[in-house]
Amino acid sequence: MSNENVARLFNVRSHNPSFFSVRESAGYQGELLDFCIPVNLHFPPAAFIDLVHNSLNNILRYYPDYAEVHQKHIAEMTGLPSETIVPANGSTEIITSLCQHLRGPIVTSIPTFSRWTDLPTELGVPLYTVNRKRENQFRLSTNEVARTVRDTAARTLILSNPNNPTGACFELEEIVELADELSELDAIIIDESFIDFSDLKSSAQLVTDRPNLIVVKSMGKSIGWHGVRLGYAVTNPSRARLLRDALPFWNINGLAAFVLQTLPNFKREYRASFALVKEDCAYMKTALSKLRALTIYPTQANFIYAELPAEISGRTLRDRLLVDYGIMVRECSNKLGSSEQYLRLAVQKKSAVDELVNALERELNHGWRSETTTASTFR
Amino acid sequence: MSNENVARLFNVRSHNPSFFSVRESAGYQGELLDFCIPVNLHFPPAAFIDLVHNSLNNILRYYPDYAEVHQKHIAEMTGLPSETIVPANGSTEIITSLCQHLRGPIVTSIPTFSRWTDLPTELGVPLYTVNRKRENQFRLSTNEVARTVRDTAARTLILSNPNNPTGACFELEEIVELADELSELDAIIIDESFIDFSDLKSSAQLVTDRPNLIVVKSMGKSIGWHGVRLGYAVTNPSRARLLRDALPFWNINGLAAFVLQTLPNFKREYRASFALVKEDCAYMKTALSKLRALTIYPTQANFIYAELPAEISGRTLRDRLLVDYGIMVRECSNKLGSSEQYLRLAVQKKSAVDELVNALERELNHGWRSETTTASTFR
Repeated sequence: MSNENVARLFNVRSHNPSFFSVRESAGYQGELLDFCIPVNLHFPPAAFIDLVHNSLNNILRYYPDYAEVHQKHIAEMTGLPSETIVPANGSTEIITSLCQHLRGPIVTSIPTFSRWTDLPTELGVPLYTVNRKRENQFRLSTNEVARTVRDTAARTLILSNPNNPTGACFELEEIVELADELSELDAIIIDESFIDFSDLKSSAQLVTDRPNLIVVKSMGKSIGWHGVRLGYAVTNPSRARLLRDALPFWNINGLAAFVLQTLPNFKREYRASFALVKEDCAYMKTALSKLRALTIYPTQANFIYAELPAEISGRTLRDRLLVDYGIMVRECSNKLGSSEQYLRLAVQKKSAVDELVNALERELNHGWRSETTTASTFR
Repeated sequence: MSNENVARLFNVRSHNPSFFSVRESAGYQGELLDFCIPVNLHFPPAAFIDLVHNSLNNILRYYPDYAEVHQKHIAEMTGLPSETIVPANGSTEIITSLCQHLRGPIVTSIPTFSRWTDLPTELGVPLYTVNRKRENQFRLSTNEVARTVRDTAARTLILSNPNNPTGACFELEEIVELADELSELDAIIIDESFIDFSDLKSSAQLVTDRPNLIVVKSMGKSIGWHGVRLGYAVTNPSRARLLRDALPFWNINGLAAFVLQTLPNFKREYRASFALVKEDCAYMKTALSKLRALTIYPTQANFIYAELPAEISGRTLRDRLLVDYGIMVRECSNKLGSSEQYLRLAVQKKSAVDELVNALERELNHGWRSETTTASTFR
């Protein structure tokens, strides 16, 4: 596969290409190692998968249940009141609907999940950004955020917590502080899609007292199956009803519904899986820290934000890792507020981490560091 | 289970309760026979299901592909240009988005799939209806439709073809006639969700020449798996792009994507399955025709619209069939333009039809015909 083809493959709006398209197109002959997509690799357990197999035809034959049933199951997992819950076909369905209906101007921090910046732009909603700075290890102060909201007369604030792709976070106390200080906003949206992998407390418990707070949650990352499409929002009951009414009936497919219904029986395994991901994450941090050319930042998520030396092109590195090692990494040049000098490395199991570290060691230290890094002269 | 509980169970907006909720709540101890949900019972074949089982974890682990890939697969199945296709999380996702964005007033024929009447009403879009009349066996003339469009200064026309729940149809020539006569409308939407079960030709082939034509298609009914959530719209390329842009990324779940990708390898079995449904339908028509108390109407779909004698309450009959026989039927009192005097009976396999006919024979001819039929005094 030529490097031009690799570049074209990764040129899909602001997101990753799908794993399937990379696998089909990559010249690499072995198994691909995926460091692009952060997903729980310790769930679902075999017994859970067996249940899915055994029920598959029954799951798929009929129309899935209405929202009420899914709300009840999510409430059972989270302890939240079911009337505050809006089940969705992946968090992206909620994000799309929110962006189509929210009032601007919007303030958000960057870099962030690209749907939060692309959708307002496409829809013509004014968007202001607060830059997460390297010198602060990408953490923001609540003051910076509140000041930007006031300076821009914003009506909506959107924060992902922990932040994607940097892994930086706000503590629950900081979210409370922001919610109290910005209580006049139409909406404060906290995207907690990666919070299960962190030590943070969810702000979803605050929604009954704070009518402008909306918490968005992806479940695919947590249950280990992105393909199942499952997410939800949590907000005060009257706004939750409006949000549910704007979504299509039967938006939760039968398999996703079965997962929701089954999950409460696997609470113990579910929690244990996050502990295992944290172990992998700690191992990966230690291993990557040994590469002197790489700077890695603190993370509360199941990915690590890593900075390359200025003379190394992230795009070229990505292409070399794919073609020569079968390793997929995500460089962040298509993320507002980041650049190809940053990789977002999804936490993988230890053996995969070892392969990544070996490949990076060769490429960063013994490879093409001293060569020119422009794509046209590469190779 | 009390009849009050049965009634509560079926009181879900204008649609059926889910099969799962009925199964969980019904007092009946055996297997339930479902005549509510029209779905292809001759697909998918075992080899197809095996493929799903073998690939399940891989299908579910990753984010599914982007729309382009699904468009290509649908194009492969239908022969339509891929740029005219809008893949959706069930046809209801398209219907919801269309209703949220279309210009009123709307004209539609009733009875019809309730989302087409409920959504405009909820959204405050003016809606005018053309009644399908019993004396015309629920068929409409193009003149009646065109006249109502002009009389109401409608901007959008919506027709389901074959019609749900009556099974009546327009021939392709009639759709062409309507499209030509109403070329100044913003949108002519033809819901062909049940067309695979008919002898009709799809109007999707017309979209490149007629910019206001939008064809909506459910796939769950055809592939035999409603729970997988799969549908699409077909319209001219620029409108198709706008429609795709209004839908969330990754709206097609991994399993639905796998079904789409696999279907072209099962074209022969897929076509053969519709022939088998037609055989079942013919058997069911003949069997039901023997019940003199029942009037059945011509159908081009995989359901039969059946009229009860005036003295028989469809709701009471439904409850008795569920509680005493484990048979689920759909009476149409919650459909605009219909009433509890009508049942929409989904085509079932022959043995199930025999059970239904036996039960109806007892209930209609030897049962409670002479009793009062009001719910309060029943039993």
